[in-house]
Formats: sequence, C-alpha cells, structure tokens
Amino acid sequence: MAVDNLDVASRASIRRTNLGLVLRRLRSRGARSRTQLAEDLGLPKATVSTLVNELVERNLVREGEVQRGGSVGRPRQAVELHGRTLCGLGVEISVDYARAIALDLRGETLLDQRITINAQRDSEVLLDAVAALIARAVESMREQGVEVIGVTVATPGEIDRDAGVVLFAANMNWSRLPVVAGLRARLAADAPPIAVGNDARLGAIAEHAIVGPVGINDLIYITGEVGVGAGIITDGRLMLGATGFAGEVGHMPLDPERQPCACGRRGCWETMVGLSALLRHAADAGDPVRDPDRDLEIRLAEIRTRAAVGDKRTLAALDRIAHGLGLGIGLLIDVLNPQAVVLGGYFAILGDHLLATTRRVVDEHVMAPHAGGCQLLVSTLGFTSAARGAAQDALEPVFHDPGSVSAPADQLSVMRKS
Amino acid sequence: MAVDNLDVASRASIRRTNLGLVLRRLRSRGARSRTQLAEDLGLPKATVSTLVNELVERNLVREGEVQRGGSVGRPRQAVELHGRTLCGLGVEISVDYARAIALDLRGETLLDQRITINAQRDSEVLLDAVAALIARAVESMREQGVEVIGVTVATPGEIDRDAGVVLFAANMNWSRLPVVAGLRARLAADAPPIAVGNDARLGAIAEHAIVGPVGINDLIYITGEVGVGAGIITDGRLMLGATGFAGEVGHMPLDPERQPCACGRRGCWETMVGLSALLRHAADAGDPVRDPDRDLEIRLAEIRTRAAVGDKRTLAALDRIAHGLGLGIGLLIDVLNPQAVVLGGYFAILGDHLLATTRRVVDEHVMAPHAGGCQLLVSTLGFTSAARGAAQDALEPVFHDPGSVSAPADQLSVMRKS
Repeated sequence: MAVDNLDVASRASIRRTNLGLVLRRLRSRGARSRTQLAEDLGLPKATVSTLVNELVERNLVREGEVQRGGSVGRPRQAVELHGRTLCGLGVEISVDYARAIALDLRGETLLDQRITINAQRDSEVLLDAVAALIARAVESMREQGVEVIGVTVATPGEIDRDAGVVLFAANMNWSRLPVVAGLRARLAADAPPIAVGNDARLGAIAEHAIVGPVGINDLIYITGEVGVGAGIITDGRLMLGATGFAGEVGHMPLDPERQPCACGRRGCWETMVGLSALLRHAADAGDPVRDPDRDLEIRLAEIRTRAAVGDKRTLAALDRIAHGLGLGIGLLIDVLNPQAVVLGGYFAILGDHLLATTRRVVDEHVMAPHAGGCQLLVSTLGFTSAARGAAQDALEPVFHDPGSVSAPADQLSVMRKS
Repeated sequence: MAVDNLDVASRASIRRTNLGLVLRRLRSRGARSRTQLAEDLGLPKATVSTLVNELVERNLVREGEVQRGGSVGRPRQAVELHGRTLCGLGVEISVDYARAIALDLRGETLLDQRITINAQRDSEVLLDAVAALIARAVESMREQGVEVIGVTVATPGEIDRDAGVVLFAANMNWSRLPVVAGLRARLAADAPPIAVGNDARLGAIAEHAIVGPVGINDLIYITGEVGVGAGIITDGRLMLGATGFAGEVGHMPLDPERQPCACGRRGCWETMVGLSALLRHAADAGDPVRDPDRDLEIRLAEIRTRAAVGDKRTLAALDRIAHGLGLGIGLLIDVLNPQAVVLGGYFAILGDHLLATTRRVVDEHVMAPHAGGCQLLVSTLGFTSAARGAAQDALEPVFHDPGSVSAPADQLSVMRKS
C-alpha cells in the first residue's frame, strides 16, 4: 500500500505535521506522558519519543513532573509546553486605548500594558504611540530572556491581512491605513514580524482557547465597544470567509428606529447596542459617564454602581441594550446554530445586568427549539480578549510548524515565511 | 518514522480513505488516467492502480476512453465513474408538490417525477403519496438494472436527522412529524435506507456540485418558496451548526412593517420576500396567480409574462421583493463573507427581474468593499435543487466509503451503517 512507498518529501512533511500535532495536543490537554501522547494521537510510542525529543531540543517542550498512575505500573515522566522561552505579542488598538499582551507557549501572560490613546485623532501620532508600546514590550521581554517571535495587531474594521492594511474602520475614521508598514518603519530592523487582524476575530480565538477544552468548538464571540463585531468559530477554527471579512455583524439593519450610524447607513445593530447607545440612553450629555476623555473602565464601573443601587434610568438603558442584543444574537443563532455565544467587551463588564433579558429575547426569536441548545456566556477576559487572541495568533506559526524554530540552547531564532 | 510502523488497522483505514479520495476526485474532475490521478493525489502510481482496480471490481468505476496526450508518450487509458449501476434517490416535499429525482454516481439524472400534493392538509395522506412515489421510483430503477442505494427526503423546517423527525415546519403545519418511520412503515422491508434533511441545506449541496468545479467553495444558497431558507457551504462543506440547524434565515427580523409570520412572530424576512409576499403585492385576492390549487410553475410563468409586457403592478412587486432580498442577502454577506450567493426556488425562476435591484441594495449595505467580491448568481436548477441535493446526499456513503459497496458483478448490495 501507499504507506510503504512514501517518498522522502512526504516523510519530512509528515514529521513536521506530527511535531505540530504533539505541540497542539500539549496545548489543548496540558502535561502528558509520551505513552498518553502516543495513545491520543494514534502514533507508535517510539515515534512520539523521537518527536518529543526534537521539541525538547528546540526548547518548545520540557520534561515535567513524574506522574504515578496508581498502585501498578511504573511512574511516567510527563512532558509539557516550555514557558518563558518565547512568546507572541498581541496589541489591540481600540478607539480610546491600546493594550499589549505577551503570552508564552503555555498561554501564561508575561506582560500586560495599556496606554490611553485617541485613535480617531491622528493616525500618524497613533502609530508612533503603538510602535513605542511594541518596542518597550519587546525590550522588556528580551531583558527577561524571552524572545518575541511575532506581533499581531488587532484593530476594528475590514482588514487586508496579506497587505497589512486596514481598509476601512468607521469608528476610527480610518481608510486604507497601512498599519504594518507604518509600524515597521518606526521599529528597529531586527524587530519581530508584524501582522494585523480584526479585533473581534482575534478575540474569538482567545475565547475559544478558554471554552474549547470543555468541548465548545462552535461559537460566536460578540465584542461591544463603540463598534460591535463578531468572530465565528466553527469546528474549532476561526471562520474567515472568502476574503477574511466574515463576522461583520455590527451593521445588520435591525433597528426599526433607523438611527444614523458612523458607517453612513441607518439602523445598524451597533446603533442599537454599541457603547454610544448605552451611554446615550443611560445619561444626559453632560454626565461624566459620557465624557470620552475619562477612562472607559471607570465609566463602566460607575454605570455598574448606578445599576446596583437601582437607578431607574440606568436599568432601563441596560434593558434596552439587552433587548437589542437578544434580537441580533437570535438572528445569528438562526444563521449559524452555534453551541455558545460569548459576550465580550463592555457586554462582558455589564453581563450580569444584560443576560436575563437577552436570554429571554433570544429564546423568543430563535426558530430551533431551545435556541438549538445554544449557551449564552459572558467572557471572563473582559477587554483583554482581542490582545490575547492577537498574541495567540502571533504564536500560531510555532504550533503549526515547530520545525521552523531552530534552537541552539541559549539562542533561539525563528524563521518565518516572509 | 511513524509511517513505517503503521499497524494493520491504520493500513486498512488508509486504504478506505484512499478509495474515497479516488472516487471523489473522479467526481470533481471527470475522467482521468491512473497517472493523472496519482499526480493529483500525491500517491504512487502503483497504489492508484490497485485502488482503481478495486473500484472497477465494485462496479463504481470503469475504463473510459483512451487519451492521447500529444505527439510523444504512449496513450493513456482514462478511468471514469460508472453510471447507471446504482443511484441515490432524492425526494423533495414542498407545500404543494413532491418531486423524486434519481442521480447516478456520475450525477446523471435517471428519473425525475413530480406529483401535486397539499402538504398542509393531512400528513398521513401526504406520507401515503410520498411512499408511493418512492416505491414507484425504486421499482422503475430496478427494472432498468439500477439499484437505489439510499433515499433522502428533503423538507422545510427544523429536522432531527438522527431521529428522522421533522421537529417543526411552520408552513407545513408540522410538529414532530416522524417522516422516516412513517415512510418506512409504508414501504417494503427490502426498501433502501431512508433519511430526512432540510430542503435548503440539501439544495446547497446540489448548487455546490455545479459551481464547486469552477472554484466556488464558500457560498450561500437561498431558496424561496412559501418559506425562505438557506444552506451555507464553507470550505466546500455544508455548514450544519452544532445541532444541524444552521441556515435558518427565513425568520431574521428585518421587516420594519412587522407583518405577521406563520411562525407566530412578526417582521420575519420571509414575510418580506417569500412567495406569499410576492403574490400579495402582485395581484388581488381573486387573481388566478394567487390560486393555491393551480400549479405554482404555471402561476410563476404568468407573472413572468406580466413582467415582460411591463405590467406596472407586477414590476413594482418584483422590485419590492428584490429590495427585501438585497437587505437580507447583504446581512448574510456581512456575517459569512461568501464567494457567491445563489438564488434558488422562485427567486431563480424570476431571477432576471430581481437581480439588478438586489445587487444594488447588496452593494449599498455590505461593509466590505465590493461586497467582499461576492457574486450574485441565479440557480440553473430552479425547483430541482433540493431533490437533486437529496439524491447526492443519499450517494454520499459510497463516495466516503466505497469499500462498503460489495459488488459481485451483477448483484450489487450496499452495507450502510445502521
């Protein structure tokens, strides 16, 4: 049969594939013995040992604790992902802040920094600030002996990832902004590779990393800030669509009141449920919660406090948002039939005040019985999802082709496709 | 490496996988020589020859024409899928007709029969009629020496495929109708296996078979009859969702006029663009195009004629439908970013009168530039998509596990998983 006749190229390709399989298994299931890995992957134990040894040489995996399986059998040495040797850096650019998060292979947060910006003002000034944030993060990691193997920048809007350009982001006033080239020009020549991706899609990757291990591999992540976006995970993978634009849910024409939207259209979902709608319903123009120069997290904490003490206007505003959320989420469940919808961004911060009404409206609107079994979850990552997902995205080349990492003990260097 | 150590189970599994690969390649690319197949699949030629011989023995593949590649090299014997030995039977049950289509492995139509029914009246009488249609079709195929290896029934509504039950179909007045058990009880004990699936999802499979070969593997198929449904193909595969309900687009709450819908809600997309909306806008209650006892295809032909002679009311009705279609399709493009949206059902019959307005509204509403490159296509299958897709569905076990077909020359029998 075919398996006896495989040529050298096929063998090399299978080896690389298997290296990635081992690494991804350790990511999804945690520390495991070589014997367990062999069982998991349906590969002979000798093969798995060879693969593990190669990953250890590359500093991607290390020997972990000795596991004792019970009263019989000899103890097994577990292997686990090696932390703190290399990391991915994710940088979210939002309307009023930028955040950098570095994650190592184990998903441990090595760095979390946040700066206040005004993305709508001047994109050159913004790129200066973001480049400085990246440079500081890379330097800080290097000082700790950790190499940043890639940077992924998360922004709202429609993105041409291959070109590194944000084509259009209404709430940022951006049109064809060359984010990657702009950052690269501001960084040192030996800076890590940079990519740019959509914030909601990247956030979905971070959320899936949380709920995937409990068996949720079909989900919609909804992020709420000034804009509203989504990332769709099907069969455990991010749905990109034909040209990478899948998940553009903020402009579904759902609002019968047809409020004008920043995109130039009327009645978009984000005019019903975006942050501006909440603030407009909850407070008059002079109210400090509507002051864009104040930190968003402080303003949301204030809204939480008002809701907690039963402020009628705040509760009515939250109920209105929850209703609008339910309408749009119900529609998305009808179209995609996910196992879960995860609320992120400000929806997560205010989740306990939104969930009951949203759930009721969803159940009323979805055609499938019991909303097709869909769970409604509140993100535990709050405003960090996009930056975390971006950091995971920056690490993906390692998990898909660990052979690209060559590791002479104390000097890691990574070759990535240009 | 691993490939030398594969055990017998793995080898058998690889052989079955490879048999399916060869068969699916012949389906997607047509007749090919063994050498071409080996190149296509990256398998050694000797392996491919063994696989092809096994498929020939099972009567699934046959030797085709001799190909001459040019002035040099010896001529090559092509192999191709064997037609007219076995077939899948697809049966669509719609509100006012049932249609049976038999397709062989080559996708050739061996049978196409249509009966008039009234699905809304009595489900027992309906199942009698459909069972008789199936029995006649199976018998007719048998007389021609063709075995029906499976029957898939396509109906609107939410379906529990494993149980063989339509859970809910508003336009049919069905609730928990056990279609498979009902048909099985009416058919002979040696009748082929029966399954039931959603009409729009099955229609999408048929449409993908048409456009997949030209590279369209991300598409949304929209079917319009009394209800409106969708089937979503991503990466060449039907998206089912977590529990098989993905594509339930008919009840997206898009109509600002909030007309009541058969589902009990208001403002559903199908109240804007379903067949009833078209007929209501196009004609008064007594008009023959609104008479449900007349054949739908004849009524639609009459509407085409009125549009062709410039009847103002008809044109205005079509424009209104086209506008509503554009709104909903634009939303779906934002969410899913497909390469193409294919209009089926009555939208296909009237496509030339709908397309320009629908395209304009789509372009105005989709966030991605040029609607993410999405094409708007009119189905060439008209009202046959669902039955054709169902027939293809019934053939899937062969294409995925050709080893399940055992073929002593003149007596085919198929073992399917129960």
